[in-house]
Amino acid sequence: MTYNTIRYEVEDGVALITLSRPDKLNAFTPEMMREMIDAVDRTDADDAVRAVIFTGEGRAYCAGADLSAGTRGFVDESQQSLMNTDGSVNYSSEAARDGGGLLTLRLFESRKPLIGAINGAAVGIGVTMTLPMDIRLASEAARFGFVFTRRGIVPEAASSWFLPRVVGVSKALEWCYSGRVFDAQEALDGGLVRSIHAPENLLPAARAIAREIVENTAPVSVALTRQMLWRGLGQSHPMEAHRIDSRAILSRTASADAAEGVASFLEKRPAAYPDAVSKDMPDFYPWWDDQPYR
Amino acid sequence: MTYNTIRYEVEDGVALITLSRPDKLNAFTPEMMREMIDAVDRTDADDAVRAVIFTGEGRAYCAGADLSAGTRGFVDESQQSLMNTDGSVNYSSEAARDGGGLLTLRLFESRKPLIGAINGAAVGIGVTMTLPMDIRLASEAARFGFVFTRRGIVPEAASSWFLPRVVGVSKALEWCYSGRVFDAQEALDGGLVRSIHAPENLLPAARAIAREIVENTAPVSVALTRQMLWRGLGQSHPMEAHRIDSRAILSRTASADAAEGVASFLEKRPAAYPDAVSKDMPDFYPWWDDQPYR
Amino acid sequence: MTYNTIRYEVEDGVALITLSRPDKLNAFTPEMMREMIDAVDRTDADDAVRAVIFTGEGRAYCAGADLSAGTRGFVDESQQSLMNTDGSVNYSSEAARDGGGLLTLRLFESRKPLIGAINGAAVGIGVTMTLPMDIRLASEAARFGFVFTRRGIVPEAASSWFLPRVVGVSKALEWCYSGRVFDAQEALDGGLVRSIHAPENLLPAARAIAREIVENTAPVSVALTRQMLWRGLGQSHPMEAHRIDSRAILSRTASADAAEGVASFLEKRPAAYPDAVSKDMPDFYPWWDDQPYR
Repeated sequence: MTYNTIRYEVEDGVALITLSRPDKLNAFTPEMMREMIDAVDRTDADDAVRAVIFTGEGRAYCAGADLSAGTRGFVDESQQSLMNTDGSVNYSSEAARDGGGLLTLRLFESRKPLIGAINGAAVGIGVTMTLPMDIRLASEAARFGFVFTRRGIVPEAASSWFLPRVVGVSKALEWCYSGRVFDAQEALDGGLVRSIHAPENLLPAARAIAREIVENTAPVSVALTRQMLWRGLGQSHPMEAHRIDSRAILSRTASADAAEGVASFLEKRPAAYPDAVSKDMPDFYPWWDDQPYR
Repeated sequence: MTYNTIRYEVEDGVALITLSRPDKLNAFTPEMMREMIDAVDRTDADDAVRAVIFTGEGRAYCAGADLSAGTRGFVDESQQSLMNTDGSVNYSSEAARDGGGLLTLRLFESRKPLIGAINGAAVGIGVTMTLPMDIRLASEAARFGFVFTRRGIVPEAASSWFLPRVVGVSKALEWCYSGRVFDAQEALDGGLVRSIHAPENLLPAARAIAREIVENTAPVSVALTRQMLWRGLGQSHPMEAHRIDSRAILSRTASADAAEGVASFLEKRPAAYPDAVSKDMPDFYPWWDDQPYR
Repeated sequence: MTYNTIRYEVEDGVALITLSRPDKLNAFTPEMMREMIDAVDRTDADDAVRAVIFTGEGRAYCAGADLSAGTRGFVDESQQSLMNTDGSVNYSSEAARDGGGLLTLRLFESRKPLIGAINGAAVGIGVTMTLPMDIRLASEAARFGFVFTRRGIVPEAASSWFLPRVVGVSKALEWCYSGRVFDAQEALDGGLVRSIHAPENLLPAARAIAREIVENTAPVSVALTRQMLWRGLGQSHPMEAHRIDSRAILSRTASADAAEGVASFLEKRPAAYPDAVSKDMPDFYPWWDDQPYR
């Protein structure tokens, strides 16, 4: 797949996915949604990719849905066909599928750590797409806005699940009610980003986090950790986590990765983990039975 | 309904509900519970109300259950009839209904944003009633106490659900174990309130937050956002949020509100949203099937 | 039961459980797991114990699994028998039981407040065992590490349930991905511990928190509060909390503890609560039907 709206590069174990419609402030389109999902399929399938960084080209990260054709920019063609000329809607839970949600549910499933390097404006879907990412860093130039109530719509991309868990329900509600745009410092104070960087230091900081993972950790361990922690958030009792991690500890303890991990630790040398995400995930993975996201 | 224990005023799109038993430090009674629930029924039904502020008259916000008649102040008459003279209790999940919980479950259902302007002591039910509010501000004179363990009872008003989600489980447990009263700064540090204000600036600050909502946002969008985010907190998987927000995005995109929201944004002018909460909520609302709260 | 790997002392209503293999940096073994579970059975059964403090002897709190016999230190003998010589595993959800999880699930059930006084290195199971504790304090000398990805294994002890709830999912993922060791200040900034103390002040600070509970609060109220708040974290709707706290308020209001709590409050004197955890828990306790943890 050749991409028109994003750029995809892999270097030193780290994939860089750059939203790339700079003359449109990287406004989100159905094409960009499909290309981002395809790119995450690639990072998941490629053992040479150990971590993924998302950023935007030019002065914005993503200014939100592309509204150059009006309100229909909030949905894709398949959704527009569900809207009748009299204003009524033919929706069902099967056919009505928010495009932002298709993307964030795909990110939720990722086997690789996802790092958001938010270089500029991240508004509407521009910010909600970053919520299922694991780690968010902001440039001093970043701006954020959950602007949905100021456009007559609602928070999307499953952000009503992600946002209260990332920043707490009170801050989530305050930002979503007002719909105003706020700066990187307020995002940091509210827990939306982990750190703020000068523009030229943003990508180096994101790469440093990625490199620490690449250089020190076992890929299968990282992939399992990602799903265990995110899915732990939705469990009603720690027994559910115990059922999974008991099996994971047992199978990983029997693995060549654990032998190498312990040996390298005791010998105080760098580890070289033999197992790969493409072929060595334990047989109980995936342990969930979600409704498919596409 | 005429109120004896609260005052109810609407001005410029904002309802102000004032707990008003100042000679009793606004101590909570079954009558106050019924009047507060009635008041929230009014704010929900009145399209002229876009946000709700709660505060207390005099030096307290609410000093807790009215104990002038002893421990029976913790429950209402219907609950007292379940208590036998030998100390045993005839309770069932149907008949035993904590009055504080009836209030907080009603607040949970609100279609309008709820802002707590905590002017003084908020102790026992005085503080737990504020947990389902969306935004809490404190006066420098505010004091807080989850004093239940110092009265021989337990946290009520469904606060065991709300408090760990608002301030985290560790802080919630520490405050509830000790039962001690603490000041506004500790409440701010622990995440219980968003900001502290000089007493004379408390209501103006609450009104400013409310006004930003009134002046800029679509009422139906705000009402949907409130339920989406609070209920998102209880969902086990983001797919549940996706099922709701897909339908909400589709129906709101087809609405006159979205047309006005996008047009006003592109024309850089204030929006005038046509849709009203009383008649334009989408047909899938409410999307939940809760046990009724009364 | 006589203990080989821990010390158990009770003084002034507070149990002190000290991990005690100082020449091994208190490394975790199956024996230590069994002894810690037995010790918590004792604190739960003994009405003279009102709060529990955990700490470590010597310079570490707990350096993780004892790896002196290699990777098998991650599991106990019963689990090793499930590992075949060809690297495959005979696991089922019944037989595969992570030992760290057996401990943390037991801590989760505790009827007494649990306070972690983390005096030194807390790495691997050394830190995950502290997550179901209610309150964590750190010495300036404490160090923390979720090092699993650097050993080729995964987070255990049901930490995928506890950690995102204690510190948020983003910080949890960042620490678990990198596997690096970090200091007490980073733990405080990230919400893992509530406060930092000079080494000589650590236990006195933990004792002060425990003493405030012992001197002021009703034991049955505290035991119920612990289970209500932790279990509230896993509930999907506040109605679930309301069903429990309605019954708890009613039965406690009818209790001698409430009479004493209100009388002592009105008379401004210390309370002497008559009810005991061993015999006066309400008849609906326990209200859950979990799979047994052993």
